[in-house]
Amino acid sequence: MPIYTPTAQSVQDRITRHADAFEARFTQYFERLRQGFDHPAESLFTPRALDLVQDLALAGGKRQRATFVYEAARLTGSATEPAAHVGALAIELLQTSLLIHDDLVDNSHTRRGIRSTHGTYRAELPHHPQHAMGLTVMAGDLAGYLAIDVILTSGLPDALITLLARTLSLAATATFCGQIIDLERDFSKLPGLAFLDTVSDYKSGRYSAIAPMRLGLLAAGTDPITHQDTLQAYSRAIGISGQMRDDYISFFGDPKITGKPDSVDVRAGRISYPLRQTLAAATARERDFVRTVLGRADATDADVDMVREIATHHRVDQALRKMMQDWGEKACAEAATWRTLGWADDAVTFFEQMPVWGVERVL
Amino acid sequence: MPIYTPTAQSVQDRITRHADAFEARFTQYFERLRQGFDHPAESLFTPRALDLVQDLALAGGKRQRATFVYEAARLTGSATEPAAHVGALAIELLQTSLLIHDDLVDNSHTRRGIRSTHGTYRAELPHHPQHAMGLTVMAGDLAGYLAIDVILTSGLPDALITLLARTLSLAATATFCGQIIDLERDFSKLPGLAFLDTVSDYKSGRYSAIAPMRLGLLAAGTDPITHQDTLQAYSRAIGISGQMRDDYISFFGDPKITGKPDSVDVRAGRISYPLRQTLAAATARERDFVRTVLGRADATDADVDMVREIATHHRVDQALRKMMQDWGEKACAEAATWRTLGWADDAVTFFEQMPVWGVERVL
Repeated sequence: MPIYTPTAQSVQDRITRHADAFEARFTQYFERLRQGFDHPAESLFTPRALDLVQDLALAGGKRQRATFVYEAARLTGSATEPAAHVGALAIELLQTSLLIHDDLVDNSHTRRGIRSTHGTYRAELPHHPQHAMGLTVMAGDLAGYLAIDVILTSGLPDALITLLARTLSLAATATFCGQIIDLERDFSKLPGLAFLDTVSDYKSGRYSAIAPMRLGLLAAGTDPITHQDTLQAYSRAIGISGQMRDDYISFFGDPKITGKPDSVDVRAGRISYPLRQTLAAATARERDFVRTVLGRADATDADVDMVREIATHHRVDQALRKMMQDWGEKACAEAATWRTLGWADDAVTFFEQMPVWGVERVL
Repeated sequence: MPIYTPTAQSVQDRITRHADAFEARFTQYFERLRQGFDHPAESLFTPRALDLVQDLALAGGKRQRATFVYEAARLTGSATEPAAHVGALAIELLQTSLLIHDDLVDNSHTRRGIRSTHGTYRAELPHHPQHAMGLTVMAGDLAGYLAIDVILTSGLPDALITLLARTLSLAATATFCGQIIDLERDFSKLPGLAFLDTVSDYKSGRYSAIAPMRLGLLAAGTDPITHQDTLQAYSRAIGISGQMRDDYISFFGDPKITGKPDSVDVRAGRISYPLRQTLAAATARERDFVRTVLGRADATDADVDMVREIATHHRVDQALRKMMQDWGEKACAEAATWRTLGWADDAVTFFEQMPVWGVERVL
């Protein structure tokens, strides 16, 4: 029995409210950026790169990171702190940068229901794959430095700028390490569960949970360093359950809803949580079959469906739902302890309910 | 007749002295970085990525950027300002990051006489080109954020941190734009000289000249904003002459000295200064021939030699040496005006002599 009252609707409401307000600010950010941006007047490719950064940035996504900044600010202050807006812009720009490079590395041409940056460049320069790759690298680099720049040019007090910027840069370097071990995983025949958890923690927990929470707390004048352990425990648990959910959706989900190509992990040979659990649960014969399909870009839909059938036959879907629920409950229990710090009840409730929302979402 | 007294030797001495002192600091930086670096203990790929960043960073190069920081600090203060060391580390780390991505984009497997990061990953993972690419992207991303992080964690006063970090991020975004137009250039049959100058200004002038000079001035407590125009003029002139020299060495230089593959621009179809000037000066028939060679990765040495012969026949080498000398003199004359600001004579002399050193170097 869950230890939380499932009130996913109210979490979704709050996310939607933050996301809408953030969307307007993000649009305004790009308008201002383009007015003052130092780029060569005669270049057509530079504004195009900015277009693609902006298109992807504004194409939505869940805005979970911006919401985390605002809700963390509410723990000890208010969501309208000027520094909270700066933190939200910075973390969503970092996210944009990461997605641009991630889609290049994964050779993924679709993202958030639109073409990925690499996909667009490939389509626009069909005879120049090397240039398309190069421009994608540069567009991602640009977004990555815009993320830090929005903090540096915020006009906030210098001491706060240093703290916010350092929080972002720590999140960025940890995430790059997470993406490196994400690739390292592909060189293991059957990575352990603990290894996948570490990938999740570094690759998504750091910049999707702990960094935005730290930014929000800093914005409200609270030093997150004194709450390091509990923030880290929460962040790790929600990072793992969130990654499990992402992997689950990618493998068991509906591409019409997710806007992502289905089962990309199978064809890319990426041993995601469901694939790891399938390999671990399968008979020797099934395992051999799964291994012939894994990493074959030209695997047929029937092959992939068969892998999925093996998975459901061994109840990997159920087991995975249970695992993500357990991690979600762990995160929820950790957040509950924040009441003893005297943090705002309403905001604590958000962080308690967030994990179940994360596990129940279909997108 | 040159307006400067050619004393390239003393410039080289000073660069060598700064470079040696910097080398020790850079080595120490990596030792400390690796002690406190937050990365997953079970990962082998993460320390390997750090190795490659470190190898390239410490493989030398001219350290022109670090030298610029120290010499700019001497204009109004001293080269031993703590912030000068921070600025030098930051700009050389940014340079490392740019080189890692640049060599990926250019598919160049050699750099500074050692294997490029991408070259190493390709060699270590021969059957996984996509992973090699991805790891190279991530290693470059990591170095890029280490550059800003070294400023943020410096312990310098917060107001100075903000200024230094903002200087770096401005240089980084301008350089990414420079690299974007560098790729854009390849889509023009015969880019104008002015366009190539803009590429040079953005791609190298910004982060190789004006950024390190600003960092040095800031380190010495001087606000570079009041000297914006003259710094920009100097930086543009030295950026253009330096890029001309790089292109000249790559096309006319000796690969045994440069450690770079010869004539990589020809086979990559990159219309560098010498190639642009060759196309502009050639007869219609020669031009047709040059165009058949340009961009052919499998062009024979004889083909490339023939392009070079056409170039020297039209005295492109001489004309280019004259052009870079003119830009060098422009930079020199700009630096001479700094005496009227009361800036240290000795340091001004360095910046006056630097352009001729830049033009005369063979590496």
